[in-house]
Amino acid sequence: MERVDVRQSVLKENDRIAAELRADFEGRAIVCLNLIGSPGAGKTTVLEHTLQALSGGPRKIAVLTGDIQTERDAARLARFGFPARQITTGGTCHLDASMVWRALADIPLDGLDLLFIENVGNLVCPAAYDLGEEAKIVMLSVAEGDDKPLKYPSIFSRATLMLLHKMDLLPYTRFNPEAARADARRVNPGIEIIETSCDGAPGLSRWLEWIEARIAKRAATRAQAL
Amino acid sequence: MERVDVRQSVLKENDRIAAELRADFEGRAIVCLNLIGSPGAGKTTVLEHTLQALSGGPRKIAVLTGDIQTERDAARLARFGFPARQITTGGTCHLDASMVWRALADIPLDGLDLLFIENVGNLVCPAAYDLGEEAKIVMLSVAEGDDKPLKYPSIFSRATLMLLHKMDLLPYTRFNPEAARADARRVNPGIEIIETSCDGAPGLSRWLEWIEARIAKRAATRAQAL
Repeated sequence: MERVDVRQSVLKENDRIAAELRADFEGRAIVCLNLIGSPGAGKTTVLEHTLQALSGGPRKIAVLTGDIQTERDAARLARFGFPARQITTGGTCHLDASMVWRALADIPLDGLDLLFIENVGNLVCPAAYDLGEEAKIVMLSVAEGDDKPLKYPSIFSRATLMLLHKMDLLPYTRFNPEAARADARRVNPGIEIIETSCDGAPGLSRWLEWIEARIAKRAATRAQAL
Repeated sequence: MERVDVRQSVLKENDRIAAELRADFEGRAIVCLNLIGSPGAGKTTVLEHTLQALSGGPRKIAVLTGDIQTERDAARLARFGFPARQITTGGTCHLDASMVWRALADIPLDGLDLLFIENVGNLVCPAAYDLGEEAKIVMLSVAEGDDKPLKYPSIFSRATLMLLHKMDLLPYTRFNPEAARADARRVNPGIEIIETSCDGAPGLSRWLEWIEARIAKRAATRAQAL
């Protein structure tokens, strides 16, 4: 009983901070995307390719990347000219809103279009923690198996978008994309689905278009509000 | 502070039950193996192939398989003539010793040689929970990336054996097996490492030999004690 109470009060405090973050992001027209997936789903690599594609363009971007122990990912993500900060959780299996709050302390938010948060590699625990994001994005690699949407419904039901990733490996696996799509829609009828790969077709162009559409929509909403 | 206290008391209670389980397994000369890996690392598939290889042989085996929501895996694992029980955690991101205790209630332990416990797909949280097993086995698929031993050191440091799995996919990935081996040994100098695949070479023969050696050793220890 005590365990449940503590967990609920932790989540309540998290939600309070997340709501403040969300209000701040909305006020500044920042699109905040929370990337969640298993270890090795390809989160950091997709972010690398995304930052590379957007570098030199008009978009101002920042990245927070969560990890339990190492600072490797921030180093990988800092090479594209955008601020990138590591959040090292020291054993905790997910990011929470207070970690995001602290990590943003030295990142200038004015004029930012896009904030990527790469969560700790874990398909379970991060689903329960609101980080103030506009959308959760779940990444499922075709090397993982098509049964994951039903086995880990919590994250698939809360995600706005599923990236069906490493499509280049599809010919070498038993993964059935239609089954994965159908099961993802069973737990979340409204989920958007984009197939991606960082090594050959189909590439990331549809994902990049999806991001641009979110930024345009957010900017339009803000212009109306002003 | 309260959170830490509660977590520590939960772990202490878990360790108490795990110690009872371990004593029971040792008394009966049962080799208990706790399989831990990311979602999609290949845990259930390796167990399917292992049970198939051992079916019709002299070994008596039972399987517990943890999942958050579905009962799919027990159905997959029950086809080989050995008792298989699902532990559905209902949201919890790991198995604990009390779940194992309850799941064993209707499995006859007398004469059992081998108990497989397939943990929830998660490379983080299951590492902290002793289930009374003789050995933790961490599965790393080459589709996940070779940086995982340093990024998730807790499980790699506690595992007796690492299965470097889906080796058939190696030619299509950037995975560096030597880097993964070296990093696993950095966090755990004594870790054993076996390369496996369920789709072609190198197959599971070394893994099956490893299991047989554990059973033989456990039986010899018991014979000495009697």
